[in-house]
Amino acid sequence: MTETMTDLNARTSELDRGHVFHSWSAQGSLSLLPIAGGRGTEVWDHAGKTYLDFSSQLVNVNIGHQHPAVVQAIQEQAATLATIGPATANLTRGVAAQRIAARAPEGFDKVFFTNGGADANENAIRMARLHTGRDKVLSTYRSYHGNTGGAIVATGDWRRMPNEYARGHVHFFGPYLYRSEFWATSPEEECERALHHLRRVIEAEGPDTVAAILLESIPGTAGIMIPPPGYLSGVREIADRFGIVLVLDEVMAGFGRAGEWFAFDAHDVTPDLITFAKGVNSGYVPVGGVIINDAIARTFDERVFPGGLTYSGHPLAAASIVASIDAMESEGIVAHAKEIGADVIGPGLAELADKHPVIGEVRGTGVFWALELVADRTTREPLSAALMGKAKAELVGRGVLPFTADNRIHVVPPCVVTADEVAQAMTAYDEVLTILDRSVVE
Amino acid sequence: MTETMTDLNARTSELDRGHVFHSWSAQGSLSLLPIAGGRGTEVWDHAGKTYLDFSSQLVNVNIGHQHPAVVQAIQEQAATLATIGPATANLTRGVAAQRIAARAPEGFDKVFFTNGGADANENAIRMARLHTGRDKVLSTYRSYHGNTGGAIVATGDWRRMPNEYARGHVHFFGPYLYRSEFWATSPEEECERALHHLRRVIEAEGPDTVAAILLESIPGTAGIMIPPPGYLSGVREIADRFGIVLVLDEVMAGFGRAGEWFAFDAHDVTPDLITFAKGVNSGYVPVGGVIINDAIARTFDERVFPGGLTYSGHPLAAASIVASIDAMESEGIVAHAKEIGADVIGPGLAELADKHPVIGEVRGTGVFWALELVADRTTREPLSAALMGKAKAELVGRGVLPFTADNRIHVVPPCVVTADEVAQAMTAYDEVLTILDRSVVE
Ligand SMILES: Cc1ncc(COP(=O)(O)O)c(C=O)c1O
Ligand SMILES: Cc1ncc(COP(=O)(O)O)c(C=O)c1O
Repeated sequence: MTETMTDLNARTSELDRGHVFHSWSAQGSLSLLPIAGGRGTEVWDHAGKTYLDFSSQLVNVNIGHQHPAVVQAIQEQAATLATIGPATANLTRGVAAQRIAARAPEGFDKVFFTNGGADANENAIRMARLHTGRDKVLSTYRSYHGNTGGAIVATGDWRRMPNEYARGHVHFFGPYLYRSEFWATSPEEECERALHHLRRVIEAEGPDTVAAILLESIPGTAGIMIPPPGYLSGVREIADRFGIVLVLDEVMAGFGRAGEWFAFDAHDVTPDLITFAKGVNSGYVPVGGVIINDAIARTFDERVFPGGLTYSGHPLAAASIVASIDAMESEGIVAHAKEIGADVIGPGLAELADKHPVIGEVRGTGVFWALELVADRTTREPLSAALMGKAKAELVGRGVLPFTADNRIHVVPPCVVTADEVAQAMTAYDEVLTILDRSVVE
Repeated sequence: MTETMTDLNARTSELDRGHVFHSWSAQGSLSLLPIAGGRGTEVWDHAGKTYLDFSSQLVNVNIGHQHPAVVQAIQEQAATLATIGPATANLTRGVAAQRIAARAPEGFDKVFFTNGGADANENAIRMARLHTGRDKVLSTYRSYHGNTGGAIVATGDWRRMPNEYARGHVHFFGPYLYRSEFWATSPEEECERALHHLRRVIEAEGPDTVAAILLESIPGTAGIMIPPPGYLSGVREIADRFGIVLVLDEVMAGFGRAGEWFAFDAHDVTPDLITFAKGVNSGYVPVGGVIINDAIARTFDERVFPGGLTYSGHPLAAASIVASIDAMESEGIVAHAKEIGADVIGPGLAELADKHPVIGEVRGTGVFWALELVADRTTREPLSAALMGKAKAELVGRGVLPFTADNRIHVVPPCVVTADEVAQAMTAYDEVLTILDRSVVE
């Protein structure tokens, strides 16, 4: 570790504190890790201190850090044509759209590109409203859909509350057996009752006023609640009965995270619109979008689609998408995510749950897992924010970058994580959970 | 022109028609130019046919296509660290924020990065509302602020109308002497009356209900209406009197377009928040943001800022910003834009106006000019959409990519455009205007 490198960490922190305003934070007391580089599941600072990235940053670096084929594709596209406006035809953009549509179910041919997940949802909502001629958008309380005007009001969690300036949004409860809103005691009961609840909300709102149901296929930041078998297909039936557009938000769950190209592939359902971002190119270049089924696409054949943005179909983003999907395919990365989830991460976390009373529930699939931490296994009282803060610091101290939300640790490494890396992280989780156990009522 | 290259144009168009859903369009009859590469003011298709880009795409490629220093910076950052989450400190991001803040007036130290112009405005509106504790946002009818939930309702033009789902937006008329809303006959009168109108709207809405006035420093897509001397400082005075946050949208006007780093630099005014995108890195990587004055930044020192996004402060975008600002500085690109506007483009367009009755007015500065085309110089009736379509096709046929909006041709080449390129484009404009003259009532 040279003097200069340590200086670079200090300079990074100084510039950050002086000039960078950060998301979802009070700015005064922020002190963030300087990150200078990475590879695969690892990232490091300027002094060469490395961390295992079990957050995939914001659960987006599905292909791992610095995948050489994606880096090279970005470099080559930058050398050819870094940017071009949306009102042109561009080969790389066309290939990217084709690659994405090819992963979606039959009957999805067109892609509208945006800059990220929020504006993907904004535009899906716009399409659903104009396609149906209706106004209301239903989404769950336990959800996050982005920070812009409409997406943030579609969001269910606390981030909506200071931002409720868009109208037409109605929230309902999704299935979540561990903290059931429906006094259910089995997955079957939770599923049935959650569907009953949704149907009652639609009836009470007036079915003819509802344009869309917007759902994360697997609610992510809200807690990685895999829907019980039959829930998504039940929602599909309800949507069909009432002529409502079903939008599945695959921003976090899609492109390998859940061990599938789309998380809904493991459920018996076809949505009308699919929103994506994050895993589509692991965020190497900002991008998101909407995959549009043919019926909705046709609505805008003769009618002007009243949405758009300067960087729609950005060629640098497109090049990174093509390279990323191709590498995921040829290297079997989605299959690997599924296997390591089933064979290594799932069993490992189950073992931890057996051992640590602070773990209330383990849920997940692929590289998309949550440890729900509780102060008391019987009452299921969530672990305090202070102890969650301690958990986070202790994990970072052990060289593991965690993703935490409320009373949960989300175990969300890149899809390319190895069994060895999982084992290293499990050791750190084990030690930290042991510390937390001390404060748990058994 | 080889067979293969022509095939690539055809393949590009085919993929585009099959899979790409486009902004602000009916999709059925689109037929867009394939663009494969570019350099400076030129772009070309796969068959080597070149065009002079007098649109800068969506008025964003300020530094010109494929500036080598910006391309290299992207390539190097891609090799080092293509992506990292916002909840880290990153050196390139910190340097980019510092470079941007250094161009802004005294008292602007912090930058919140977004993905584009729309979410920059979304977040500026959020900051203004939380800083003031008030709700309403005032903006002009002749404006465009982006396509997301709040930004599209802040927008004044037709694009707002199918999308009015956010509340709290009020519109007023800005100064536009050529089509005065105030029966004014001189710039002084237009300025004075436009300020009177704004003040009356605020009084009638209730000054204590108004969080922000959001204005493009120079309304861009709406027609490049340079505000009359005294207008922006008059708005500043009104905002101060009523405790309203003044947000200047520099997304299109900033970073060289108007021959200044910020278009408001030519006016005697300091806003509270500045939004940017486009010219900051010429769109080589999708990015935008808000430059925050210290008073508003302090509001969020202890209080959580309830906004954020996965790609805030993206390192690839940051690297392109640093390289772009440095190249603009060292190559005198902003000064060049100012000079070529004053010495070449302005005089050239004035000559065309003398010669062509179809030109109702010429307005602009730097590389930011509008030709307002009329069917009748006396009544100022706008030229028909059909003739505007013809104008566009004729210009493309002559190898010039134009930017057209309503009844206007916007003359908006990259800041690096040469006198020789301007002369070539002027010849094309001259020929096409001659065709249009035939239909004008003199
Ligand atoms: C499910 C889901 N939808 C939408 C978003 C918003 O994406 P972005 O941050 O790119 O706007 C996120 C981000 O975390 C998400 O998890
Ligand atoms: C003045 C202004 N503000 C905001 C925007 C929206 O920017 P974006 O398309 O990057 O969302 C634009 C785009 O043209 C603009 O001209």
